[in-house]
Amino acid sequence: MKAPKAFIFDVFGTCVDWRTGIATQARKAFSNKGIEADPESFADAWRAEYQPAMERIRSGGRGYVDLDDLHRENLDRVLGKFGISDRFDDAEMAALNHAWEKLPPWPDVVAGLAALKGKAIIAPCSNGSIALMTRLARFGALPWDCILGAAIARDYKPKPAVYLASCAALRLPPGDVMMVAAHKDDLHAARAAGLRTAFVARPLEHGPGQTKDLEPDSDWDVVADRFDVLAAATGS
Amino acid sequence: MKAPKAFIFDVFGTCVDWRTGIATQARKAFSNKGIEADPESFADAWRAEYQPAMERIRSGGRGYVDLDDLHRENLDRVLGKFGISDRFDDAEMAALNHAWEKLPPWPDVVAGLAALKGKAIIAPCSNGSIALMTRLARFGALPWDCILGAAIARDYKPKPAVYLASCAALRLPPGDVMMVAAHKDDLHAARAAGLRTAFVARPLEHGPGQTKDLEPDSDWDVVADRFDVLAAATGS
Repeated sequence: MKAPKAFIFDVFGTCVDWRTGIATQARKAFSNKGIEADPESFADAWRAEYQPAMERIRSGGRGYVDLDDLHRENLDRVLGKFGISDRFDDAEMAALNHAWEKLPPWPDVVAGLAALKGKAIIAPCSNGSIALMTRLARFGALPWDCILGAAIARDYKPKPAVYLASCAALRLPPGDVMMVAAHKDDLHAARAAGLRTAFVARPLEHGPGQTKDLEPDSDWDVVADRFDVLAAATGS
Repeated sequence: MKAPKAFIFDVFGTCVDWRTGIATQARKAFSNKGIEADPESFADAWRAEYQPAMERIRSGGRGYVDLDDLHRENLDRVLGKFGISDRFDDAEMAALNHAWEKLPPWPDVVAGLAALKGKAIIAPCSNGSIALMTRLARFGALPWDCILGAAIARDYKPKPAVYLASCAALRLPPGDVMMVAAHKDDLHAARAAGLRTAFVARPLEHGPGQTKDLEPDSDWDVVADRFDVLAAATGS
């Protein structure tokens, strides 16, 4: 296989463990206030608001706003559901919203990205903003060449514009770019837009009870369980 | 001084020596074809087309196109002026246009950026495209956290939108961002947009006969002759 000229990545779930990261930050915030709520359930509930919030923008019902703003609005809802809205002031909620910038990379990611960067451009193609992706990269030492994704397109995946704008920003045809994700819907959309595809399973993304995205459901160009394996599988 | 939360940089001239880089690539291209033209004069002539080409876009006379496209159009004009248009086919001209991705950093830049990155976000705020800035960073090992600038704003410096869109992409108020440049017009525009400013003189940018931008013309927040000095001068 001729190596792609760029690898672009889903980030939440594919590169970083959002559930553990959010639960860690929530646990600290709850502990400081003596709140007895389950941090992992809180992380799951916050993440559950993610797709509905983006769907309003994808469908044209709302103009583009950064994911940071959606996360902050969703935080209000989740604190309400947990009955703890009155325990946090605005500054504390803003601070908790930065939890999304403090998510640990999966163990293979930093070394795997370094190996991939030796072959081609590497960049996130995430729904996270440039601000969020930049701070997350600094937190986790993710060695991106640049930041692509939703903020470039001012729309949200899996809309084709996000993949196409990311390729266009690199001045590459989609066939020279490989989308790497742990989520099948992301890869189906990328393939429909003309990109090459790599599925990297992340069986612990949703915790020990995960049932989805455990196995490839299609003949992706590459299937791997670690980024270094992906690097070795994509030629030179 | 409280350190800025982000440093954003002019690139051509401030971070990299475009004149030496372009002349090096032109020298190779000319040598391969037995063309006897002066590579430094060719570099100067190509660069001289830069501002007029952007001005059409800044003034609204043309929609935004990447600087790569302007460079390619300008190359046609410069080859014509040198009377060597018929010596290059399309593929050779496209290859020569990539010279802008192969410009050597000034000697203090890579280590200086590493020091600055330890304190704050670092990113180019250049008129170069994301594609161009990404490949130039890979060529010169410039450790950017992300790529900002003209492509984010879809307009060209010194229009205020470019500085403001770069700050907005980081979700920072302009007063938390410091613009670093060797060019006074860039700094005047950044300051007018509310950013902090650092002047780093590059007295060899235009070769041995340089007359402009040798000394600061205003009370910039920092004046330095190297990036490590800038890092030391900006607090923590």
